Amino acid sequence: MNATVLSIGTELLFGQIVNTNAAYLSQKLQLLGINVMYHYTVGDNPDRVRDTLKMALEQTDLVISTGGLGPTQDDLTKEIISETMGEKLVLNEETMDNLTTFFKKYNREMTENNIKQAYVPENSTVFVNDAGTAPGFAIEKHNKIVIAMPGPPREMKYMFEKYGFPLLESKTNGFLRYKLLRMYGIGESALETELKNLIDSQTDPTLATYAKEGEVSLRVASRRKTVDEADAAVSEMVSKVKDIVGSYIYSEDDEDLNVVVGNKLIKYGLSLASAESCTGGMFAKTITDVPGISHVFNRGFVTYSNEAKIDELGVSALTLEKHGAVSDVTAVEMAIGAREVSDVDIGVSVTGVAGPGGGTDEKPVGLCYICVSYGDEDVVRKISTRDRGRYWNRNYFCLAMYNLINDVIKERHEA
Amino acid sequence: MNATVLSIGTELLFGQIVNTNAAYLSQKLQLLGINVMYHYTVGDNPDRVRDTLKMALEQTDLVISTGGLGPTQDDLTKEIISETMGEKLVLNEETMDNLTTFFKKYNREMTENNIKQAYVPENSTVFVNDAGTAPGFAIEKHNKIVIAMPGPPREMKYMFEKYGFPLLESKTNGFLRYKLLRMYGIGESALETELKNLIDSQTDPTLATYAKEGEVSLRVASRRKTVDEADAAVSEMVSKVKDIVGSYIYSEDDEDLNVVVGNKLIKYGLSLASAESCTGGMFAKTITDVPGISHVFNRGFVTYSNEAKIDELGVSALTLEKHGAVSDVTAVEMAIGAREVSDVDIGVSVTGVAGPGGGTDEKPVGLCYICVSYGDEDVVRKISTRDRGRYWNRNYFCLAMYNLINDVIKERHEA
Repeated sequence: MNATVLSIGTELLFGQIVNTNAAYLSQKLQLLGINVMYHYTVGDNPDRVRDTLKMALEQTDLVISTGGLGPTQDDLTKEIISETMGEKLVLNEETMDNLTTFFKKYNREMTENNIKQAYVPENSTVFVNDAGTAPGFAIEKHNKIVIAMPGPPREMKYMFEKYGFPLLESKTNGFLRYKLLRMYGIGESALETELKNLIDSQTDPTLATYAKEGEVSLRVASRRKTVDEADAAVSEMVSKVKDIVGSYIYSEDDEDLNVVVGNKLIKYGLSLASAESCTGGMFAKTITDVPGISHVFNRGFVTYSNEAKIDELGVSALTLEKHGAVSDVTAVEMAIGAREVSDVDIGVSVTGVAGPGGGTDEKPVGLCYICVSYGDEDVVRKISTRDRGRYWNRNYFCLAMYNLINDVIKERHEA
Repeated sequence: MNATVLSIGTELLFGQIVNTNAAYLSQKLQLLGINVMYHYTVGDNPDRVRDTLKMALEQTDLVISTGGLGPTQDDLTKEIISETMGEKLVLNEETMDNLTTFFKKYNREMTENNIKQAYVPENSTVFVNDAGTAPGFAIEKHNKIVIAMPGPPREMKYMFEKYGFPLLESKTNGFLRYKLLRMYGIGESALETELKNLIDSQTDPTLATYAKEGEVSLRVASRRKTVDEADAAVSEMVSKVKDIVGSYIYSEDDEDLNVVVGNKLIKYGLSLASAESCTGGMFAKTITDVPGISHVFNRGFVTYSNEAKIDELGVSALTLEKHGAVSDVTAVEMAIGAREVSDVDIGVSVTGVAGPGGGTDEKPVGLCYICVSYGDEDVVRKISTRDRGRYWNRNYFCLAMYNLINDVIKERHEA
């Protein structure tokens, strides 16, 4: 099956909004084995919407539109699709009830143009909008499928996952299931080399690598006759992958590293304090992104100056003088200091050169030392990354901190 | 003039990349008064590229393509545009020299397919690529303009600003100049109401508002016969805007609030320490995004627990018991504590409820207290925002901290 993603909205043509919907839908369609041939974007102009829709229907079997379903006058997608597909608009009771409930709940008056949203093409499958007011729909006719969904990404994604994906899955051969493995400490090309035999030797499950800032993802996907078969094929392949690169995998469910580590701290009841220099609070900020972390994250120090390292963490002035602020010894003293001052289980620290300035031949931009102090052991690691700019470097250092905590927890609690 | 943005690349249709180029170019074209009618995206398929290009040339006067200019076999944009516009490809000496220099510099062998990049359409304006190897170009023929640029956003933007924008500016009436004013503390609709008379009463300069997370931007743009006239018209309008909403403006040059405040701290030599609770290090992280801040940012405390507030900042246990951690008194004690412990000029603090949990009727999610302690004065502010999720709330609190520091600096150093 071939597809076109048709994005409707003048705000896209003004560049006020980046079209993330087209990328999102393309990823999902690719997973279903549907070939996306075109992305078309037009403004809220009836003639251009109509012409582009007709062209897309000639060129491809499936057209997925987003946008133009709202209550205002310039929202004309529904009308144009209905007309083009030869369907009239009829009142949908369920949508009408939802709208009435919605407006009652927020104490807002339901105007005439809102009622317009309760009309849907007669022979269509209605996609209820649980995240907003405008419903979506699907029309199947003349061997073509048109799916229309609202423009706001949150509403669209919710609707596509609940209605669009299963509908399209029923039109394709079998069922698609996948796992997204997240890894740290291995590059994309190294990962491909390690998995070359697995990648080359088969067509299902498929293995696809994706590079993300400082880390790599691997998608293992299988399309089979039944969900159970697809699940089993994915599980089997994931085991094979783990035999080869298991030590790099930190999540099999597409979770971020801070979330994985935060949840482990909560699970094992391990209290934590952080001491940061070059990352300037990025670790504390990201660990406190994790819901429920207040039970274990006690405090964080951003000891940017040498005095702060001495005052707050008890780093010795002699250490700073002899080894420098960016050194393994300083990192150890910072982690121990954070742990002792805060009376927590784990102290984690980082000191390094994030750039753009401050690098030397001996201690270049991209170098840092990180340390985890836990139980009777202080583990310090030297991290060197090619300088890719301040933001990238700081993010990389931060990931290294999470990875080290994860390694230590694995060794003590999960071995 | 009407335009189409034509994005070429199979990776876009796979959803591996979000198409930011189309939005960027659309913004710039809108500034030039050129109407963007369509965004089309096709893969690296010669027939589909050719057909879509021809269609775009029929529909609009200007087609700007991105992608497909690299050295590999599937990069065919240049060949197809040349053929469609009736131009043959010729070797461009300057590009050849640049390529030779580039490969010599990085000690890489220049293969045959790299030499391919030195060929450009015969009657075209060459856009030298200072950020990569593939040159871009513009062809003007039969009352149509085709501009081709590489796909990587960094290369494309650089090239468009240096060559594309001036070329198109020369085709439009006069010259466009603009200022982007950044504001905090006023909503988009309130801003529009305040400026209604200015917006309604004229067509040049134009005023356009943009909402960003927690803040608003205003673009003041003028297109005149000369650059000087446009600059003067923008300046005059900016003055009028400042008379009405000047107190909300923190930058007239599209700088972020953390950068504005960071640079003022550096300029006035004001040392700073931060004490954060609910923002969990976001303030420290963002202030340390500012280059050169290490001269003035001394340290940051992320006092997530009550003990940390007591230990590190000297907040009294009685205060926490009597007023609670989220209170004006706690905020003041935190700011004073951070300032005194660190022996700096300014202490800034925040304590609040970022959500999703932790809210009560009395202290709902979205409430925080911030304080700046400087000189003989401690200024504490209560901030209430409608809960829009943890990330949004934390960002809003953080902006409020910067804004308060900015207000205090304005009063003491810039009044």
